[in-house]
Amino acid sequence: MPLNNLGEFGLIQKIKEQFSLNLPQSVEGIGDDCAIIPESDQSSLLVTTDMLIEDVHFLRSDILPQDLGYKSLAVNVSDIAAMGGVPQFAFLSLALPLNLDGAWLESFFSGFKDLASNTKIYLLGGDTNQSKNGIAINVTLLGRVENKFLKRRSEAKLGDIICVTDFLGDSAGGLKIILDKLPRSADALHLIKNHYRPQLNLQQGQWLSQHASVHAMMDVSDGIDSDLKRIMESSKCGVEIRIEDIPVTSVLKKFAKGHDFDFLQLALAGGEDYCLLLTVDPSAYEDLNNKFQLQFSRSLFPIGTIVEQELTYLQNGMPFKIKNNGFDHFKKADGHE
Amino acid sequence: MPLNNLGEFGLIQKIKEQFSLNLPQSVEGIGDDCAIIPESDQSSLLVTTDMLIEDVHFLRSDILPQDLGYKSLAVNVSDIAAMGGVPQFAFLSLALPLNLDGAWLESFFSGFKDLASNTKIYLLGGDTNQSKNGIAINVTLLGRVENKFLKRRSEAKLGDIICVTDFLGDSAGGLKIILDKLPRSADALHLIKNHYRPQLNLQQGQWLSQHASVHAMMDVSDGIDSDLKRIMESSKCGVEIRIEDIPVTSVLKKFAKGHDFDFLQLALAGGEDYCLLLTVDPSAYEDLNNKFQLQFSRSLFPIGTIVEQELTYLQNGMPFKIKNNGFDHFKKADGHE
Repeated sequence: MPLNNLGEFGLIQKIKEQFSLNLPQSVEGIGDDCAIIPESDQSSLLVTTDMLIEDVHFLRSDILPQDLGYKSLAVNVSDIAAMGGVPQFAFLSLALPLNLDGAWLESFFSGFKDLASNTKIYLLGGDTNQSKNGIAINVTLLGRVENKFLKRRSEAKLGDIICVTDFLGDSAGGLKIILDKLPRSADALHLIKNHYRPQLNLQQGQWLSQHASVHAMMDVSDGIDSDLKRIMESSKCGVEIRIEDIPVTSVLKKFAKGHDFDFLQLALAGGEDYCLLLTVDPSAYEDLNNKFQLQFSRSLFPIGTIVEQELTYLQNGMPFKIKNNGFDHFKKADGHE
Repeated sequence: MPLNNLGEFGLIQKIKEQFSLNLPQSVEGIGDDCAIIPESDQSSLLVTTDMLIEDVHFLRSDILPQDLGYKSLAVNVSDIAAMGGVPQFAFLSLALPLNLDGAWLESFFSGFKDLASNTKIYLLGGDTNQSKNGIAINVTLLGRVENKFLKRRSEAKLGDIICVTDFLGDSAGGLKIILDKLPRSADALHLIKNHYRPQLNLQQGQWLSQHASVHAMMDVSDGIDSDLKRIMESSKCGVEIRIEDIPVTSVLKKFAKGHDFDFLQLALAGGEDYCLLLTVDPSAYEDLNNKFQLQFSRSLFPIGTIVEQELTYLQNGMPFKIKNNGFDHFKKADGHE
């Protein structure tokens, strides 16, 4: 069966089944934002890896090399943030066409270093190779977390308030502008910036992880429609989402209206937001949100509730069907994240 | 400056300079087979990563998917072996064309699993992606080493005996047969097998690392002409190699004679042997080699001596010039390892 019929999740499931048997005690492999390798009673190593492929994840003609360098690290930092960890050591593999200019590569590294310096990440190794086709980038990131603060996808509880830490869809809006070659107004450039240099929620992730009232947490990388299903699968629960509470920026709404596309579809299924999706004990939500506001000068966005089963979207209490059914690297026609 | 003028080593040097500043205490980054991250006074984490790119490192039409799966892990295991470590946890990123058959992928994983099972490596995560062009594979491997047994490239001492743990050039001979489309006799198939399923020296690496008389160690991945230069650079020394002592199999000699090519060039500069290159205290060499023979039923191959400076090849005491000057992913015309 060709891979486009199998789908990424089917493939990952097959691999997971094959490789999840007999792991050493307390080691957790495939199935969360990072793998967890216990170091001691106090702390664990977190490991995550992400690949960016030219013409699938980015267009070389459009993205600035410094933004690509930044983003190739950022998508991994987001995974560490999602589990409450502190990123520490990065490993970067590159496959590069021979005709690529050295200046391009220097800019790539300057963007990588921007984020690495800000987050105190050290690049400890990698592999550089020729490519006969496009650019391929792989980053593996190691981090550490205190065991008592570690957050997983699997801890959502019935009645939990589901919330996100930031607006959704700006990044997907930026990607749409790039792919559809829409005019680059100031608003368009703002959305594109969110696609190329996503705002990370690293401090928010670390702060939230220190609160026992936060039950499950993950980053929003594939669009929340898809990511909510992962929470459901891991926590064996259902999800009810209130469409009217999905946080969308006025910039995205305005731009979508002007170019006749559906901002909700982007916000729910677009992907690459890299904010955090979490579920919170309802009795502690108000207190947590107040403290979050004091700490970060902005509020959490409650968007729904953990229920017994199924993923249901409601718009003002009425069932609502979304157009696009989440993101899958192998199934999506254009293949772009 | 385009990358093909800069060269891989120039590029790595630039990166190393940028990123090696102010590393946390005792952490060692770019510059050896693995990065070293201390865990405690007793042990350190070793981390290595390698990328395999279609049409650069392998031809999909020639390599069996199970061999590719095996090899993508093997090249990393070899790096852990070179530092005396025990490999433990792997992370696998794949970029795959949509039209690839699921059966291909299952075979790939079966080969990966062959080696993982034999070496007790657990696959803990990864990333699967679509590719618009060829296959790209990245493996990051974590291992552990007792600090007292850790071996580096930088510890070679004046007068040390330089040796390798296995025959050289078979893998490069196999690659030549593949690229030049030479007839696949039994001998040819043996050489190709050495290219696709290199024999690892993991137990040898662990055993050797427990001996204080072994000073410097690394794996032979880019051809010893190139790898010796890395020892020289790290240990700030020179190297004198006796051409007549380079271990070459009779199979390679015979095949080379029959097809009119220079086996020495392959043995010295071909690459992908994945045996170990080490330097040994001369006063302890005989004892070490005797014990090695008892343990592994074969001998070490002494090929030269650490001297004050320069890389010199001697054939029966007379200066000897080799044809190819080591392997560099960016400079080599055909781009194949």
